[in-house]
Amino acid sequence: MIDSPQIITLTSDFGLLDPYVGIMKGVIVSINPRVSLIDLTHDIPAQNICLASFALLESFKFFPAGTIHLAIVDPGVGGSRRGIAVKTQDSFFVGPDNGIFNRVLKVNPPLTAINLTNPNFWISPNPKPTFHGRDIFAPVAAHLSRGVPIEQVGESIDLCTLAGSLEPECEQIEGGWKGYIQAIDRFGNFITSFPETYVKGKNWAINLGEKKIPGQEIYESVKKGELLALIGSHGYIEIAVNCGNAKEKLKVKVGDSISLFIL
Amino acid sequence: MIDSPQIITLTSDFGLLDPYVGIMKGVIVSINPRVSLIDLTHDIPAQNICLASFALLESFKFFPAGTIHLAIVDPGVGGSRRGIAVKTQDSFFVGPDNGIFNRVLKVNPPLTAINLTNPNFWISPNPKPTFHGRDIFAPVAAHLSRGVPIEQVGESIDLCTLAGSLEPECEQIEGGWKGYIQAIDRFGNFITSFPETYVKGKNWAINLGEKKIPGQEIYESVKKGELLALIGSHGYIEIAVNCGNAKEKLKVKVGDSISLFIL
Amino acid sequence: MIDSPQIITLTSDFGLLDPYVGIMKGVIVSINPRVSLIDLTHDIPAQNICLASFALLESFKFFPAGTIHLAIVDPGVGGSRRGIAVKTQDSFFVGPDNGIFNRVLKVNPPLTAINLTNPNFWISPNPKPTFHGRDIFAPVAAHLSRGVPIEQVGESIDLCTLAGSLEPECEQIEGGWKGYIQAIDRFGNFITSFPETYVKGKNWAINLGEKKIPGQEIYESVKKGELLALIGSHGYIEIAVNCGNAKEKLKVKVGDSISLFIL
Repeated sequence: MIDSPQIITLTSDFGLLDPYVGIMKGVIVSINPRVSLIDLTHDIPAQNICLASFALLESFKFFPAGTIHLAIVDPGVGGSRRGIAVKTQDSFFVGPDNGIFNRVLKVNPPLTAINLTNPNFWISPNPKPTFHGRDIFAPVAAHLSRGVPIEQVGESIDLCTLAGSLEPECEQIEGGWKGYIQAIDRFGNFITSFPETYVKGKNWAINLGEKKIPGQEIYESVKKGELLALIGSHGYIEIAVNCGNAKEKLKVKVGDSISLFIL
Repeated sequence: MIDSPQIITLTSDFGLLDPYVGIMKGVIVSINPRVSLIDLTHDIPAQNICLASFALLESFKFFPAGTIHLAIVDPGVGGSRRGIAVKTQDSFFVGPDNGIFNRVLKVNPPLTAINLTNPNFWISPNPKPTFHGRDIFAPVAAHLSRGVPIEQVGESIDLCTLAGSLEPECEQIEGGWKGYIQAIDRFGNFITSFPETYVKGKNWAINLGEKKIPGQEIYESVKKGELLALIGSHGYIEIAVNCGNAKEKLKVKVGDSISLFIL
Repeated sequence: MIDSPQIITLTSDFGLLDPYVGIMKGVIVSINPRVSLIDLTHDIPAQNICLASFALLESFKFFPAGTIHLAIVDPGVGGSRRGIAVKTQDSFFVGPDNGIFNRVLKVNPPLTAINLTNPNFWISPNPKPTFHGRDIFAPVAAHLSRGVPIEQVGESIDLCTLAGSLEPECEQIEGGWKGYIQAIDRFGNFITSFPETYVKGKNWAINLGEKKIPGQEIYESVKKGELLALIGSHGYIEIAVNCGNAKEKLKVKVGDSISLFIL
């Protein structure tokens, strides 16, 4: 009986134009040729830690126990921020300590966090200050995938010192909540900061400026081309257009305020 | 002796900006960690079933027997369209019953088609109405890759009721055929609706408005920067520019009429 | 004990819009189902052999010994240029003989080069003149990954006849060097033609028109939003902006002249 291959997921703002993602994979398979590599996304807008933390939150729970999530959006690379590896009940997370894992660790609490100070698990004792993804994070993830105990890759960190919250916060108002647009996906859907728990089993609507957008169960509840709000696949309320593109229909951007009302 | 890993290909309009493709892969490897996952394309224009059916037609024959093709361009998700799994002589196809498999099933006839009604093979008994790719299609494909008989994943469908034809149709005219532009690739080549069988061993040309474009064997048959028509790698006639970009040279869009003449 | 899977990397200008890359992978896994496939990049600008050769140069050294690098940017496909397979101390390279491997072969000298004339290792004896990637290069790489000796895939080539140099050349001037911008990455960093060996352990600056850009060790050596030059992860000097985008700040394009001065 052969063991199942260990999985490493990869998330970054490196894009697919340059070979940086391929290079990190080369580093990983040089250490563990049997690993299974799965890209989450490499098209996080440059240096947008918040959207990367959201991609991880949406994704991690669909992977098997023991999966290692490597995530690198790292505007402070080469500076004073720590590189970390974190162990939770089911998963491992490797990347910069800049809040990128904050959302996922809220729902999947950290058991152990390690500052990546042991150069034995780096690509060389003198990593390039501009590419810790290749020189530190990828090799550490690869060694963890071979079963190296997390305690060996560096020094233990007080969990309270991990970088702070990026979680969307909604404010309770009369009859509902005030929140904001936290992301726009490629279909032009707006992902709001309202979790599905706010509206489960209720009648509701979204107010966006003068517009009132009805809360629905499925796209086809409204005519083609019409706006609706519904619970998206990631567990937040989304604003969408049936068979169309909400982004083209509404002048709204990430960060804009919206309201949710229970009817 | 170890068995070869089963292959699942993935085609969608999800793009690579959001982690949706990675999430589907997480669902699949959670069920079958040994599967081999190959992306065909995730950059199908949103909700363009026709181009997705074309990508599958071009691709499926280059994969080994037993390959499972998962294809999700699904404007009717959560509505009344069925989810299906189809078995042919050599392959399996899993996705919405909206015509996406129509072209490929014309050349590779269906033997069995199943309506995906058995929730035992879904991610949960209550799939999200907005993401059947993750909640129904990906887990069904993963179970098929483990050898689950297709008959178990739902109820048998009358093959005649599968969603209708998207096949390009050409009209015979005096001295040739009338057809249309069915796709534009990233090099700016126009893929026409004329199959290579129309011109094999003949002298021919394409008429496009006032322009006459000579049929050639290879790009280098014309000077750099000049237009030519030739048999493309997918078996249809293409309009191209030697070392250049036909899309920048011709004001033509998908759906425009063109004529083919045998000289 | 199971052998590690053989690795094939893929580099092309095919993009990810069309299923061409997926089709090549289908051809490869049909021949060797156990191979491990890693994309370097498929977003090389169309027909830009020089940038592809740079991507390979940056990447190949991070892959394990025995890796096969398949690289296809092939404006002369179907014409008179040869298809080649090249063996070096540690790696194999398969693609057109148009200079795409030139940079990598300068630092990793060829031991054997073969003209791919043996149709037994093609997809069929009559490959399509427009898609040698699918019909010749992918199957040859797959056969090499199964251990077929390179000498069998065609006829030996005199190494001196391999296509000529694309290596950036810098000119020594008073107090430094004259060079040029050889690439722009997706973060808007300019990759110059100056190798890191020119500046190791020295104080230095880049002159670009009237602007003088200080040579630094890390991004955070300058304030947010300010220009700096530093040694990039690939071993060349780069021009960048701390937490910003140099491309948006400077009107510079690939090929523009710049100077490097030792202070």
